[in-house]
Amino acid sequence: MNYTEILKLKIKSQEFFDITDRVESVIRKSEIQNGICNIFVLGSTSAVLLNENEPMLIHDLKESLEKLAPEEKIYNHVENAYSHIRAASIGSSQTFPVKDGEAVLGTWQSIMIANFDIEDREREIVVTIIGE
Amino acid sequence: MNYTEILKLKIKSQEFFDITDRVESVIRKSEIQNGICNIFVLGSTSAVLLNENEPMLIHDLKESLEKLAPEEKIYNHVENAYSHIRAASIGSSQTFPVKDGEAVLGTWQSIMIANFDIEDREREIVVTIIGE
Amino acid sequence: MNYTEILKLKIKSQEFFDITDRVESVIRKSEIQNGICNIFVLGSTSAVLLNENEPMLIHDLKESLEKLAPEEKIYNHVENAYSHIRAASIGSSQTFPVKDGEAVLGTWQSIMIANFDIEDREREIVVTIIGE
Repeated sequence: MNYTEILKLKIKSQEFFDITDRVESVIRKSEIQNGICNIFVLGSTSAVLLNENEPMLIHDLKESLEKLAPEEKIYNHVENAYSHIRAASIGSSQTFPVKDGEAVLGTWQSIMIANFDIEDREREIVVTIIGE
Repeated sequence: MNYTEILKLKIKSQEFFDITDRVESVIRKSEIQNGICNIFVLGSTSAVLLNENEPMLIHDLKESLEKLAPEEKIYNHVENAYSHIRAASIGSSQTFPVKDGEAVLGTWQSIMIANFDIEDREREIVVTIIGE
Repeated sequence: MNYTEILKLKIKSQEFFDITDRVESVIRKSEIQNGICNIFVLGSTSAVLLNENEPMLIHDLKESLEKLAPEEKIYNHVENAYSHIRAASIGSSQTFPVKDGEAVLGTWQSIMIANFDIEDREREIVVTIIGE
């Protein structure tokens, strides 16, 4: 079996948006009991992160990404190279297990979408569940 | 259903090679309409990136990876440690959705294979499609 | 078809633990011949890496992650921000192909779990195989 739903989100520039509850609700709707769930974000300046949604930690992570790809650096791809580089370092997709009809995630492991673009964006996130 | 094909590519050292068209052709051959597509590169100095294939951006991304793992640094793993570290930071696999027989990707989201090794390499990329 | 098994591991702080043999044994038990295998680690200070298990390289990789997110830096998330940032840069999951009942991996591509937390941890790793 195979179930897909597209979530549409308005995400501010540099924001990490928690979609754990929405993904869990899609998994329940799918009625798939055991398998995997793939989270994929459309757009090459966004990323999918499975980590702790704690504001101070998100602040630290943003600082680390700013060190990796500084906003004020001069790039060849002039508009938003730093947005792409940050997205590439986190990645466009994550896949985790589904067991007994529920997402299998650690206690502090939230599903977050980051928009690293220079402007607020409406992003589409595709949730695909494969299993039985 | 389940369909696999192995692509063989000659990739220059530090090159990002765009395989979007070849993957889309594998998806059509698979006749799978809805599910997921996993791209996996064999070899621990290569990586799979879903991002914008724009030469100036690729230049910026390489510069960022050079800062992360400089070629001229002295490493313990003497031959090609920087190749492995760059590959680990991008990752060996990406998984994205397939809908109505087509890859679901953003407009600027190409599928690229990077060869970070010190020499040109022939790389095998496994494309696996799972769905219905 | 769809098969899941949970591995429990004691992993030292900053250790990379090789689970390739255990995953290959799970794949054989699953009796799935062709499809994909998803490795997911529960916990937001751990990561899944597919790379060469060579002690000098692991040393270099740790040094690179220490540069990315230094242990001694002052963070807002005081306990273990660097553990989370290192985990986010490698990622919580990896998915690779299964062919003829075997994991498809490069010669130097081992499956390793990293525990970046400040203490030794018992970690649960979910191995899910989907296919036919």
